[in-house]
Amino acid sequence: MVKRQTAGAEIERLIRELARLPGLGPRSARRVALHLIAKPKDRLTPLATALAEAAARVAPCPACGNLDTVSPCAICADPARDDTIICVVEGVGDLWALERTGTMTGRYHVLGGVLSPLDGVGPDDLAIAGLLARAAEGKAREIILALNATVEGQTTAHYLADALAGAGVTVSRLAQGVPLGGELDYLDDGTLSAALRARRAWS
Amino acid sequence: MVKRQTAGAEIERLIRELARLPGLGPRSARRVALHLIAKPKDRLTPLATALAEAAARVAPCPACGNLDTVSPCAICADPARDDTIICVVEGVGDLWALERTGTMTGRYHVLGGVLSPLDGVGPDDLAIAGLLARAAEGKAREIILALNATVEGQTTAHYLADALAGAGVTVSRLAQGVPLGGELDYLDDGTLSAALRARRAWS
Repeated sequence: MVKRQTAGAEIERLIRELARLPGLGPRSARRVALHLIAKPKDRLTPLATALAEAAARVAPCPACGNLDTVSPCAICADPARDDTIICVVEGVGDLWALERTGTMTGRYHVLGGVLSPLDGVGPDDLAIAGLLARAAEGKAREIILALNATVEGQTTAHYLADALAGAGVTVSRLAQGVPLGGELDYLDDGTLSAALRARRAWS
Repeated sequence: MVKRQTAGAEIERLIRELARLPGLGPRSARRVALHLIAKPKDRLTPLATALAEAAARVAPCPACGNLDTVSPCAICADPARDDTIICVVEGVGDLWALERTGTMTGRYHVLGGVLSPLDGVGPDDLAIAGLLARAAEGKAREIILALNATVEGQTTAHYLADALAGAGVTVSRLAQGVPLGGELDYLDDGTLSAALRARRAWS
């Protein structure tokens, strides 16, 4: 039997667009679409407006690569930020995560990915030249390589550490170890042995 | 320490709107927002357009309560549909699910909920008067109560069966039993005993 069209073309199109979002499959996309169109004024229109305004205003910061509605971004423009520290992250999501901690007082540099020869991502595809230029300016004294603890992330960190060797800056990286609330019995062996190797004196 | 604003107001607003969607928490809303604003032309604008067009066009069908971009809806307007069958569903999501099976050849009637005295939902809050009016028109010969197999769904089905008693139509309901691919060992007792009670002769 031929499968009938169950809803108008605009609804099918909305479901298709929603199904492209990360974490939403066809089933949840239908559920979300229905949730939205059931109360257009309360739910659909505010989301459509928020998307349109974000589309009109958001752009990458020319200095650090952060996405923001002002240019340069609010972090680069903030005079209270510590110019001597540049924290290098893979993507804007990582920058947001670090900002939520409230611990980072310096500036950021968004690479826009990690080195991955298999996927054809080389040094020229990432914002590495911009990072080296910022390091050469002389304001930064420490560059924190806050990359993911994955193979690609750590390969990229090694590459950057080498590239920054002659720039006269201290290169550091995030500590590895037991996460807060982590139970040893459930940790993977790699994390546990890294935590053991990096053990510190009881202060 | 004061938590800093991590992104522009438009981005924060987009995350807030996305977090209101069913199945998306604050964390996945941030991920979706980032996915969208990272490639505005490819991802953000098509979704914004799809939402705006749906908002402008989608409306409930005055006859059956289905949501569609034409009025009456495509199903009510289809002359090939069987006028003698009206399938009563709780919501438009259920209608879509039945349509995907390709098995329903008749019309629909969307109640817009189920009776729930605790939540203050009485017969006047559902599209019951419209259903009784359609039954009284004389075209329908069978009314299928395709309501969820929940306490509220079945209470509503009982109420509707009583209300339709004098209308001269056959009232039916979906079969209950073992779902396709269901393993007896993993089924709940209620389903299993319903399937046993409703057993049929091997044809």
